Amino acid sequence: MPTRRSFLHTASFAAAAAAISQIPLLRADAEPDSSLLTNANRQALERFLAAQPVLIDVVPLRTLDPSLTGRVLTHAGPPVRWPRMSGAQRGAAIAAILFEGWARNPAAAEQLAASGQVRFTPNHDHDGVGGMAGVLSPSMLVYVVRDRTSGKTTYSVHEYDALFGAYDAAALDELYRWNTLYMPVIGRAVRALGGLELKPVMSQAIQMGDDLHCRQTAASALLANQLAPAIVRTSTDALAAATLEVLAASPFLTFLPLAMGASKAALLAATGIAGSTVVTVMARNGTEVGIQVSRSGGRWFTAPAPPIDAVFFPGFGPEDASHDLGDSAITETGGLGAFAGAASPALAPEVGLTPDEFADVTAKMARITVGRHTGLVIPQLGYGPPVGIDVTLVVKTRITPVIATAVAHREPGHRIIGLGLSRIPLACFQQAAAWQP
Amino acid sequence: MPTRRSFLHTASFAAAAAAISQIPLLRADAEPDSSLLTNANRQALERFLAAQPVLIDVVPLRTLDPSLTGRVLTHAGPPVRWPRMSGAQRGAAIAAILFEGWARNPAAAEQLAASGQVRFTPNHDHDGVGGMAGVLSPSMLVYVVRDRTSGKTTYSVHEYDALFGAYDAAALDELYRWNTLYMPVIGRAVRALGGLELKPVMSQAIQMGDDLHCRQTAASALLANQLAPAIVRTSTDALAAATLEVLAASPFLTFLPLAMGASKAALLAATGIAGSTVVTVMARNGTEVGIQVSRSGGRWFTAPAPPIDAVFFPGFGPEDASHDLGDSAITETGGLGAFAGAASPALAPEVGLTPDEFADVTAKMARITVGRHTGLVIPQLGYGPPVGIDVTLVVKTRITPVIATAVAHREPGHRIIGLGLSRIPLACFQQAAAWQP
Repeated sequence: MPTRRSFLHTASFAAAAAAISQIPLLRADAEPDSSLLTNANRQALERFLAAQPVLIDVVPLRTLDPSLTGRVLTHAGPPVRWPRMSGAQRGAAIAAILFEGWARNPAAAEQLAASGQVRFTPNHDHDGVGGMAGVLSPSMLVYVVRDRTSGKTTYSVHEYDALFGAYDAAALDELYRWNTLYMPVIGRAVRALGGLELKPVMSQAIQMGDDLHCRQTAASALLANQLAPAIVRTSTDALAAATLEVLAASPFLTFLPLAMGASKAALLAATGIAGSTVVTVMARNGTEVGIQVSRSGGRWFTAPAPPIDAVFFPGFGPEDASHDLGDSAITETGGLGAFAGAASPALAPEVGLTPDEFADVTAKMARITVGRHTGLVIPQLGYGPPVGIDVTLVVKTRITPVIATAVAHREPGHRIIGLGLSRIPLACFQQAAAWQP
Repeated sequence: MPTRRSFLHTASFAAAAAAISQIPLLRADAEPDSSLLTNANRQALERFLAAQPVLIDVVPLRTLDPSLTGRVLTHAGPPVRWPRMSGAQRGAAIAAILFEGWARNPAAAEQLAASGQVRFTPNHDHDGVGGMAGVLSPSMLVYVVRDRTSGKTTYSVHEYDALFGAYDAAALDELYRWNTLYMPVIGRAVRALGGLELKPVMSQAIQMGDDLHCRQTAASALLANQLAPAIVRTSTDALAAATLEVLAASPFLTFLPLAMGASKAALLAATGIAGSTVVTVMARNGTEVGIQVSRSGGRWFTAPAPPIDAVFFPGFGPEDASHDLGDSAITETGGLGAFAGAASPALAPEVGLTPDEFADVTAKMARITVGRHTGLVIPQLGYGPPVGIDVTLVVKTRITPVIATAVAHREPGHRIIGLGLSRIPLACFQQAAAWQP
């Protein structure tokens, strides 16, 4: 809980605003410091900021990418094989195999996964993202998000308990209900609306205390408001009411896949610019963390996944925790999450900080970015969050990106066990900085 | 807009937290200062804080009070007769007369109102509240809010353009649409739900940047989410979709009548306690401001309505503005609005302040209250807003309550022209402090 002391002895919102005000930025009223903002990085930032991500559809994953058919599962983070896979990811794979009907029980599913007959491939290698374990199977319905400016398209998925590694009856039931009931309802509504612009929702939500990674309360409510009339018009009463009920009941996570999709689509637009040292991917699989950088396209720079400094739910402790996990760090890569910590005083205690300390995180992140988000304003600061992580600035300052993250269990079969903060290892950035084309 | 300067040179969130931490409060961990918190005021505060306001129904106004039948209109603020009535209130009366069909055109409506054949009576004299002009007619559908703890019941009304004084075709159309379409839909949903608890919505919204007077963005979205499944189940698709669309499109004001109703119901519970100098009503009619105090029940203590320090919408200026208007100051009387300014950095620039200055308002208000709200927490502060205005503290400190308010036009026939801040005149409190039973 926030303490009185912290408010009386610090002025971190001021520090955060001051730090952000010193970022070179892409606006007419500020002269960029050319030593920091190279033309290549400027171009990457401009493409990121110009993105207009739109939720355009809900489709089975396999229809998006011909390579994602047959016995293939995607996963979060850089590439990893079954023997080294984290517990949560193995649990999620068991759930996905049972969901697809490739095995009849968890033991058979595990055996199949270990047999080498299931191919594993990172979401990011298919221009997609998945929360936590991020294990998606070909039949799963995914959100399709397109950047209208660049045309870049990505996918993301609802934050199921299965993605934390649970594969019991309730976790599978959740997968079935969403894939047969709620996602089709949402898909019909989205198509009837001709797509749903995500930036306006995110812009409002940042003014309503969401960090848009671990807190999505406002964005989820606004999303449900936007979808509701179209849901009523395109689904039966029973389906519409059930879907609206589930949307109202799970505000914590509902918007997360869309914040991830919006971030990924915008960062895809900033990918592959010769000479740009802007980070376009940060992702974790529980075993390793990997980043990608604009100039080096889809190349991974990896390091062991660190433990998370967590606030555990009752009954759990550090000995239970998975190491850092999930593609959801794409939100921080796009200036959300911990980078927007100053926006979210209500989240701060849930990740173990005071509101001031969370604002300090925003201030620190401003030292490793080449721009600030011009499409979002944190009302406490009068500025958007810092965005455009530069590997050279990370190496120079040794300030590594902070991620506000959910915590999974280290063993398969569990649900979320806490929230906390992690840092992307310096080694990733050192390798990326040393890379030669 | 917030300026960088203000963040670097002030620490008003700290000051606000410090000020609130020094309020005597009703918690085991703090010893109340008996010189400030008399037994009577403690009792008033306890009853206010114990309130559990619930939206229970939507009904025509006349069904709530037998005296509100025939040619009678209620209005905001203390009693006022037609000749002295403010322009916005006269415009709202014309709209209400046309809505009821008591006259065929605006000129005839005005003539009728001026003839003395229409009785005017304050909402508060009927335990109700109405935003801005607050002019309600017997057939208008009102929200019914009941405090489950005390059983006290109040009414409030949607924030129509007519309540700002507009009586053109669009303003009347809005009245008709809400009274024949949307309010009945909401009423059916509320009854199907068995009532809708308002405190949880308000508690969430205060953590999402609402002040719950001039900014209701979060509360309105959460309300629509809560109502949506029941709306689908109890109305036709066309009506349900149309209502959900209008709820999603007007987040600025949708929840305001419910924040007012929740505040009024809780303050009714704190009314009529012998010896209590806690303020239970602050209300303005554009001509006069009136307050009521627990110990003196429904007695008004009045003073001329002051001008508003406003941020005007384009095309309007101080010469156009009505003086202070509306029962909505019941929200400040209950610790919301400007009293919760620290919660709402996104609203601050809309009322002409930086977020720090708005937090300063919260700090100042803490000097004239006998408690803090234990049902709400402002995440930036770690405390609920100050609540329980004590007339003796106002007189002693000469710090008068600040109201965050919408601004109406001084002439009939207009809509909202701005937002701003007003202060309840000291004279009201001096009279109330001098009152002898």
